[in-house]
Amino acid sequence: MQNTQVTLASYPEGFPAPANFAVVNSALPALAEGQVLVKTRYLSLDPYMRSQLAGRHISGSIQPGDVMLGEVVGEVVDSRAPEWHTGDIVRCMGGWQTFSVHHHSQLFPVTNIKKISHALSILGMPGLTAYAGLIWQAMPKPGDVIVIPAATGAVGATAGQLAKRAGCRVIGIVGSDEKVAYAIDTLGYDHCINRKREEVAATLDTLCPNGVDIYFDLVGGELLHTVSARLAVGARVILCGMIAETNSNERMAGPSPALWIKSRATVYGLVVYDFEPRREEFIDDCVDDVNAGKLIMREDITSGIENAPAAFCKLMRGENLGKVLVKMI
Amino acid sequence: MQNTQVTLASYPEGFPAPANFAVVNSALPALAEGQVLVKTRYLSLDPYMRSQLAGRHISGSIQPGDVMLGEVVGEVVDSRAPEWHTGDIVRCMGGWQTFSVHHHSQLFPVTNIKKISHALSILGMPGLTAYAGLIWQAMPKPGDVIVIPAATGAVGATAGQLAKRAGCRVIGIVGSDEKVAYAIDTLGYDHCINRKREEVAATLDTLCPNGVDIYFDLVGGELLHTVSARLAVGARVILCGMIAETNSNERMAGPSPALWIKSRATVYGLVVYDFEPRREEFIDDCVDDVNAGKLIMREDITSGIENAPAAFCKLMRGENLGKVLVKMI
Repeated sequence: MQNTQVTLASYPEGFPAPANFAVVNSALPALAEGQVLVKTRYLSLDPYMRSQLAGRHISGSIQPGDVMLGEVVGEVVDSRAPEWHTGDIVRCMGGWQTFSVHHHSQLFPVTNIKKISHALSILGMPGLTAYAGLIWQAMPKPGDVIVIPAATGAVGATAGQLAKRAGCRVIGIVGSDEKVAYAIDTLGYDHCINRKREEVAATLDTLCPNGVDIYFDLVGGELLHTVSARLAVGARVILCGMIAETNSNERMAGPSPALWIKSRATVYGLVVYDFEPRREEFIDDCVDDVNAGKLIMREDITSGIENAPAAFCKLMRGENLGKVLVKMI
Repeated sequence: MQNTQVTLASYPEGFPAPANFAVVNSALPALAEGQVLVKTRYLSLDPYMRSQLAGRHISGSIQPGDVMLGEVVGEVVDSRAPEWHTGDIVRCMGGWQTFSVHHHSQLFPVTNIKKISHALSILGMPGLTAYAGLIWQAMPKPGDVIVIPAATGAVGATAGQLAKRAGCRVIGIVGSDEKVAYAIDTLGYDHCINRKREEVAATLDTLCPNGVDIYFDLVGGELLHTVSARLAVGARVILCGMIAETNSNERMAGPSPALWIKSRATVYGLVVYDFEPRREEFIDDCVDDVNAGKLIMREDITSGIENAPAAFCKLMRGENLGKVLVKMI
């Protein structure tokens, strides 16, 4: 049985291109005692992976020649551990490959989730990120005005729906009219700004005359300045990502602290791994709504592991619509 | 009876000079029903006043010709309100003048405080600032490493002592050897860095190999970047002032949000006015220790209202030693 893998061929400069990756075939190793063989069903592609390529993500870095890292949902196809049996559906750090070998303790069961890809999207790491930042850190109150950039991405779309469920007034910021329509018509955003066609600052001034109560920052950069200058007193800012500088080696400065003093903001640095111990609590609160279609996640699915590099590059250019997954053929 | 007042003569550019102020004499107005005449005993001079001169402080701005604003402790010398009697010691926004007239609702009693100037210093606004940021926002735990710039100033000195009382390891940053000695020998800091003679970043690396748990930011600027790059996971940052840019019209950028994500910091914008409703709670917790000399405040006292401008300019240059007060002759 052959394993098909995607490795890093060379460090990208700026936006990654498919040529930065290589597709290789290798033999599967034999299982040692306590190990489990997982056949990938879905691979998750996420913005944080770009930081790993720059050697500066909290989860580690990737060198040329390494198999790309990534979370997968798959099926146990062989097991030398009593904890797992052929046919079990599991979540694990399988990487960009069709098969992966794991110690039995590195697998997590996927249960109660009707559609298994949801274990990588709205009930997976992006969902947990949104839930932790919005519910556990920002603690939304009905009537709060929340602004979410990258509003139709996996984290943003979940945060937006959870904020609506919490009774907030939800304003998205996206980069295309198609995303505006999707945010409003399907995700239920109250407003959505196309940052490429509208003046964000002026539009926020019109939409939020009393300021922004919660900013779920997924992008950093200039937008963090713009929104920080428009916070309501007592605002909460979740610092969760920096897409704006993901493809750059420069570290942008943050907003003037004066803006956060003026608004008495509480600003939270969010790293989703810290909330892993509470993952079940999050799933318990959301799984019924997800299974019932009340909390949704559009999935942008590419077929075939060899197409993962192109799908990742598309994600980096913001051309995806929803959670980017690679489905194994 | 004459009132001697200090007015703003002209907006300072950069650091203020005594020539930016004027001393004028005026007649006292007659009291209306419900009003009280207060004779100033002590006037408080504080860094926030510089921002008022730039028209950008939260408490309002001052125009040329206006009497300078400021909090005072004084004595009621005439009253047309049953709430107050001649001889009562009160705290109020008396301004830079020897007498002030107030509606009776604008006065606050000074009681239980042995030394009345403490109502403007360690048990006054600077003390409340330190207490709110450290105790209510940062919530120190024994063993926490806390860094305090402007460590011997009114807020910093109080925060440092309160942090020691809470069992923290307290590191100050100051601008002279004299202040280093005072911080360690008198205020009880564990360490104190002379930022003019030592490399702050390297010294912090040595002193805090496991990072900084609490940064009580009183200065903004470059130091906020330096300390933000050295935070421990779970750190708290209190944003409370920006002396570094007090005398500039430029707004400096803040640290990269990446630093606060990496440390999962919680960052609090602090405006002391928000905590006025809890002032008594703070005083109750501290007044015995202050009256017993266990929590101390060095006061840098200048005599005579006409010397207030020079004392303020000295404060702006960081040449004060302790809380700056003007004592009326």
